[in-house]
Amino acid sequence: MIGSGDAGAIAPVRVACCQIAPEVGHKKANLDKTAEFIERAAREGAQIIVLPELCSSGYVFESRAEASSLADAYSDGETTSHWANMARDLDVYIVGGFAEKSPGELFNAAAVIGPQGRIGLFRKVHLWGDENLFFSPGDLGFPVFATEYGTIGVGICYDGWFPEFYRTCALKGAELVCVPTNWVPIQGQDPKREAMANILTMASAHANSIYIAAADRVGVERGQPFIGQSLIAGYAGWPVGGPASATKEEIILADLDLASARRARRWNDFNQVLRDRRPDAYR
Amino acid sequence: MIGSGDAGAIAPVRVACCQIAPEVGHKKANLDKTAEFIERAAREGAQIIVLPELCSSGYVFESRAEASSLADAYSDGETTSHWANMARDLDVYIVGGFAEKSPGELFNAAAVIGPQGRIGLFRKVHLWGDENLFFSPGDLGFPVFATEYGTIGVGICYDGWFPEFYRTCALKGAELVCVPTNWVPIQGQDPKREAMANILTMASAHANSIYIAAADRVGVERGQPFIGQSLIAGYAGWPVGGPASATKEEIILADLDLASARRARRWNDFNQVLRDRRPDAYR
Repeated sequence: MIGSGDAGAIAPVRVACCQIAPEVGHKKANLDKTAEFIERAAREGAQIIVLPELCSSGYVFESRAEASSLADAYSDGETTSHWANMARDLDVYIVGGFAEKSPGELFNAAAVIGPQGRIGLFRKVHLWGDENLFFSPGDLGFPVFATEYGTIGVGICYDGWFPEFYRTCALKGAELVCVPTNWVPIQGQDPKREAMANILTMASAHANSIYIAAADRVGVERGQPFIGQSLIAGYAGWPVGGPASATKEEIILADLDLASARRARRWNDFNQVLRDRRPDAYR
Repeated sequence: MIGSGDAGAIAPVRVACCQIAPEVGHKKANLDKTAEFIERAAREGAQIIVLPELCSSGYVFESRAEASSLADAYSDGETTSHWANMARDLDVYIVGGFAEKSPGELFNAAAVIGPQGRIGLFRKVHLWGDENLFFSPGDLGFPVFATEYGTIGVGICYDGWFPEFYRTCALKGAELVCVPTNWVPIQGQDPKREAMANILTMASAHANSIYIAAADRVGVERGQPFIGQSLIAGYAGWPVGGPASATKEEIILADLDLASARRARRWNDFNQVLRDRRPDAYR
């Protein structure tokens, strides 16, 4: 069943999150896997397809040299070229995470690619754990990207622990924020409850009246498990796609009316959530 | 059963949220009700007691004149004097919401009162709906208050829709944020799920590694229902007290080690959530 973000949608866009299990070091196989899932999602009508963090390289690097050997350039590298060809052939947008090689440094990055080619680059701002050994912190802020369907923001995994990220995207006009992620188990997770990552996602969708599409990975890599549970949250905060399973490769889909996220920010005669902010009080 | 915020607590403080049903216009009866619940909470060992928003006046005013007639001054008014006497006699801290009369204007306010007397005043920053007809927006920012148990921040109801509020309190050193509230049903609430207000509370507790104690009201006032579900969230985000019922007057309790909230902000060798912020990227 395909979720719907708004019953009265006039121009819905079908969004897919591809939950896959990359394997570190097997770049060719990982790119083939992304191709398989991009094709499946497109066959199911997806127009915007989100892939996990670092999904062509894998995540658990043993050294900076290994990370570097699996990284490529945004402008003409193997990963983005592969996805750009597919986006053109299938007439879709792809937001996917990859290890970006830039002169002298590496970034944990995401590319936004459309039928017309590369649209933009995001570099993970908040690095988690050993990523700090391999990657430079993102230096592009939180840009948003205009598409024919609406305005898209991007963040990666731990960025979602910072409400400032979603707020910045919303204030810049994002209606949909795409989150390539590799969520890992966290201390204090109540095993009987949904993932805290999902609760953070739901709260941020609600508090900004934005859609959020988070594509997580599954599987275990060099002893590190990942938690799956990819989620598409509607602008009221509730899931409209997923959460996906904790362990299986799968695609979640939802039809979203991106304009409605913006319209719904007016809550009553007095309140519009983004305009009600009081920066004078936040210091 | 009394929840615990940390199994290894060395200096826990017992926090109570009193979920009651004030009636607009019946100030004497409302103050008596707060006295009854403060006494009950103190008998159960509570040292910090949180009361709902506007709990001496009621919430649904018909006019500014009516709101004014139910308001009193922070420094020497009936409400804060009542609570100050109880705080002294019972050796407890009280954080309670009241309509504050200030020369020429009214505020939707909360008083922080200890055994030694009045400690501080908070004025709701983000006003909801018709509150805008009766109250001035808070002009004190988000102050935090040092107590013998730890540092306390305060916000009221709709303030909780702004992650900036919790972040500001945490950055100023708050370990516990008390939230007097009158949560109302919101559009888009999934009736099968916990209240979005609780999800926002859990996400904010987790993303700042703070305790949050939200005391809601119940009942229906002039046709306006309130949703109860008072909650004490631990620093990992999960409930350690409540959520309370949606309709009944009751007290929820939890033993919290406020120091642990601060210690737990270090998540691994590289990450400490408040220090990982990147204000350069939030613009």
